[in-house]
Amino acid sequence: MRVSVPLRRAYKLINHGPTTLITSAAGDRRNVMTAAWVMAVDFDPAKIVAVVAADTFTRKLIEASGAFVVNVPTAKMLDTVYAAGQVSGEDEDKFTALALATSPASIVGAPLLEGCAAWLECKVVPEPHMQERYDLFVADVVAAWADDASFVGGVWRFPSDEDRTLHHLSGGVFVTSGDVVKAKP
Amino acid sequence: MRVSVPLRRAYKLINHGPTTLITSAAGDRRNVMTAAWVMAVDFDPAKIVAVVAADTFTRKLIEASGAFVVNVPTAKMLDTVYAAGQVSGEDEDKFTALALATSPASIVGAPLLEGCAAWLECKVVPEPHMQERYDLFVADVVAAWADDASFVGGVWRFPSDEDRTLHHLSGGVFVTSGDVVKAKP
Repeated sequence: MRVSVPLRRAYKLINHGPTTLITSAAGDRRNVMTAAWVMAVDFDPAKIVAVVAADTFTRKLIEASGAFVVNVPTAKMLDTVYAAGQVSGEDEDKFTALALATSPASIVGAPLLEGCAAWLECKVVPEPHMQERYDLFVADVVAAWADDASFVGGVWRFPSDEDRTLHHLSGGVFVTSGDVVKAKP
Repeated sequence: MRVSVPLRRAYKLINHGPTTLITSAAGDRRNVMTAAWVMAVDFDPAKIVAVVAADTFTRKLIEASGAFVVNVPTAKMLDTVYAAGQVSGEDEDKFTALALATSPASIVGAPLLEGCAAWLECKVVPEPHMQERYDLFVADVVAAWADDASFVGGVWRFPSDEDRTLHHLSGGVFVTSGDVVKAKP
């Protein structure tokens, strides 16, 4: 079940560096794109940065709408995560092509991808220089959600191998989130 | 053995989101700091971004020297990785306190931390607005290195559990890089 995550904890949903899926929407178009280059930059108020290349359809939709969703997929979505990074959504609706179910986000127009473990609804903070020079978007996290089996009391759980997050090495080869280890306090 | 990595492949050393240790040096002072918020932003020429908070000693050293090293530690360094994020190096040399061995980098003044699996020597690209507003530093990767047992032919290997990378969840709890999984081409 999807439950709300307090915004001051939103960074925890991506702090361990999972590869994400960015969803976007503007007008009657929508898209989904694989993005490994997404990270937190502030705790409270929660902010992230994401690289969205200039030649992508996602970039057009984000620039038109000023918003996007960072979805955190799990190992059961491995082939989808890779496939979503291999084709453009400009000519074909990738949700249809990849049989992806969605539900509405609470604040932004971009959809939440069903089957993911966590979701960050994001509103772009306009930074034209960073966008143009580095393809880098700063965004406020305006709502955050997690699957209540995967994120419990502010801590990630990986109840099964299929629920582990994916971390792209390159070329369609990923590592999953592995053993939990605790440092000496 | 530490071997050179072509700069166009440097992004692969951090693409899967490992938590890193940033080393810095200026004048006769040096420091090491844990940093989860580091990611690639470009392949070629290789560029990264890193968050370095305004109140840290590392920030002073990076601003004075215009350079730093991103070191990628492994599970055998778990306690060191957490400890390096808990204290300031302003009053005490953390390398001495944590018994960390170093060797000289090839281009920048900051040292390479022995025992890590990968190293990115970085030169800051001055972006005062990003630094001041978001604590975000853009840097060119000017040299990259990897342990030849951990990164073979441009691909990460994790020859033992101790060689897995660390990915910080929060509060000293990490996941290690887990199983390698390959998406359908």
